[in-house]
Amino acid sequence: MPIFSRPAQATAALAFGALFAGSVAAADYSDYRDQFEPLPALPPIPSDNTLSDERVELGNMLFFEPRISQSGVISCATCHNPALGWADRIPLAVGHEGQVGERNTPTVLNSGFFEAQFWDGREDDLEGQALGPIEDDIEMAMDLDEALDRLAEFDEYQEKFEAAFPEKDDPITAEAVAKALAGFQRTLNTPNSPFNRWVKGDDDALTEQQKRGAAAFVDNGCTACHNGPALTDSQFHRFESPGSTDKGRYLVTGDESDKFAFKTPTLLNVAVTGPYFNNGSVEDLETAIELMAEQQLGIELDEDVVADIDAFLHSMTGKQPDFEIPALP
Amino acid sequence: MPIFSRPAQATAALAFGALFAGSVAAADYSDYRDQFEPLPALPPIPSDNTLSDERVELGNMLFFEPRISQSGVISCATCHNPALGWADRIPLAVGHEGQVGERNTPTVLNSGFFEAQFWDGREDDLEGQALGPIEDDIEMAMDLDEALDRLAEFDEYQEKFEAAFPEKDDPITAEAVAKALAGFQRTLNTPNSPFNRWVKGDDDALTEQQKRGAAAFVDNGCTACHNGPALTDSQFHRFESPGSTDKGRYLVTGDESDKFAFKTPTLLNVAVTGPYFNNGSVEDLETAIELMAEQQLGIELDEDVVADIDAFLHSMTGKQPDFEIPALP
Repeated sequence: MPIFSRPAQATAALAFGALFAGSVAAADYSDYRDQFEPLPALPPIPSDNTLSDERVELGNMLFFEPRISQSGVISCATCHNPALGWADRIPLAVGHEGQVGERNTPTVLNSGFFEAQFWDGREDDLEGQALGPIEDDIEMAMDLDEALDRLAEFDEYQEKFEAAFPEKDDPITAEAVAKALAGFQRTLNTPNSPFNRWVKGDDDALTEQQKRGAAAFVDNGCTACHNGPALTDSQFHRFESPGSTDKGRYLVTGDESDKFAFKTPTLLNVAVTGPYFNNGSVEDLETAIELMAEQQLGIELDEDVVADIDAFLHSMTGKQPDFEIPALP
Repeated sequence: MPIFSRPAQATAALAFGALFAGSVAAADYSDYRDQFEPLPALPPIPSDNTLSDERVELGNMLFFEPRISQSGVISCATCHNPALGWADRIPLAVGHEGQVGERNTPTVLNSGFFEAQFWDGREDDLEGQALGPIEDDIEMAMDLDEALDRLAEFDEYQEKFEAAFPEKDDPITAEAVAKALAGFQRTLNTPNSPFNRWVKGDDDALTEQQKRGAAAFVDNGCTACHNGPALTDSQFHRFESPGSTDKGRYLVTGDESDKFAFKTPTLLNVAVTGPYFNNGSVEDLETAIELMAEQQLGIELDEDVVADIDAFLHSMTGKQPDFEIPALP
């Protein structure tokens, strides 16, 4: 059920472009482009968590701080590895003492744009998400009070928390850790992708194949779920990833209709944040596209359409955000 | 047995400096300064491992590459963490599946200047050292051939190895991994410390207390072992770290005289690379100084001398080297 039919010029351009380059009008994909929203430089900021430089700096330190894990060697950046698209490129997260989790690590890039956090949406925002992995027995396995005690031992953390939360008498709190981590993550955005430049009007930012992919993406209905600035509706949809027995959203709501439902993941940086789906069962992006089409849309895509969509999704890899590896106390 | 007696001016400056600043000549520590060697920008480079940009770039990638560990989450940078002085700030290294090793992680900063690698000196150079932790069962626990196979799966690594080792037909080899890692580490130097600037002639680079510490360091004989550009003789000396039963160098040579002997560690960046000694048993640098004096020099240092040496050692923390967190394939 195409939203728009492919413009006639597109076909002409494809068939004759090589022979008559310059003499045939370029295909016009502007109607397709209008189906997408640009990614702003910053996501929405909660009114009670100012994105001050001091708070972001503290969050940056805490994100790379392994001593808030029981072993002293696992930090947020272990699984959300900046060298690997702020994810880990393995199917299932590996945490404390090598324990293997049940779910694939999502990227934190652009995660401030999500309206639900975790694969099952059990938290609404990054502040709610931040402490989960620290305390989780198979992730950082750390008692939160002990984590705070460890931080409080360092004069430098005392100063940084005071600077980030000047209104507090005793600023090293779990809430402050969550707020600082959330703030830092809100700065990890990739608005400078070819895709986003195209959405903003730069016609040369995408190749012809990528534009055909954009058209196929819209025509086949992918935008029903993958929409908004981060290409996710932050809603939950039933999907059976190969090998998965995870009940997903059902574990949060207990609603039968949520069984095996997972949050729509962002497509921004999807080419560098595989493997795919809740259990990371699919390594290859083209296979992931085919599976999505089969299960969510009930269609089998032609091989060349899959290749076009794959090329389009590759345009969503943005310049990686600037950040510092902090010198920790 | 002081090498030089403290210059008379020093005492005068200390006693009267506050009252007669400007009218009393500043203490002259130049004889002490001459006991130290400046740190060059680069360590010696082996004739068979060119420090080409391509090789350093590849080494940088491999240093942050967790997929050459069995779990897929441990890289060189896990224990040699750039946020923690390229070490880990815990007593004993934690590796594969949370296993705890027997020794403290040494910093890789300035390690190209060492003439022996590992606490027990079982390798002479960084090329020899590089593959050890990858294969070690309690560190990255990875079969080396499997590590090479994993790298070879990526087109980008094919290209990067070819660029770094253009003379090889099939460049993804264990030797190439070792050479690239060694090359990258040779770039991780900290010549811009206050200490090194002082050695190069900048009299204002150290505080008076730090200069007094330098004099005490020389006068008490610390330079017998802590000498050369990285403040290590790369030799082995018997030392009993609290709680340690590690036989050290003896495990390599079998010589009775090497029992409990360990390589002299560098003092560069010592203030940010604790805890101290082969088993990381001492957290506090002042305590480490006292213990060293007792065991190695057979003397008990006065509290204020310890404080002076502590201040002097803090001057050895340099501007951390520039590097990139690579975007891995």
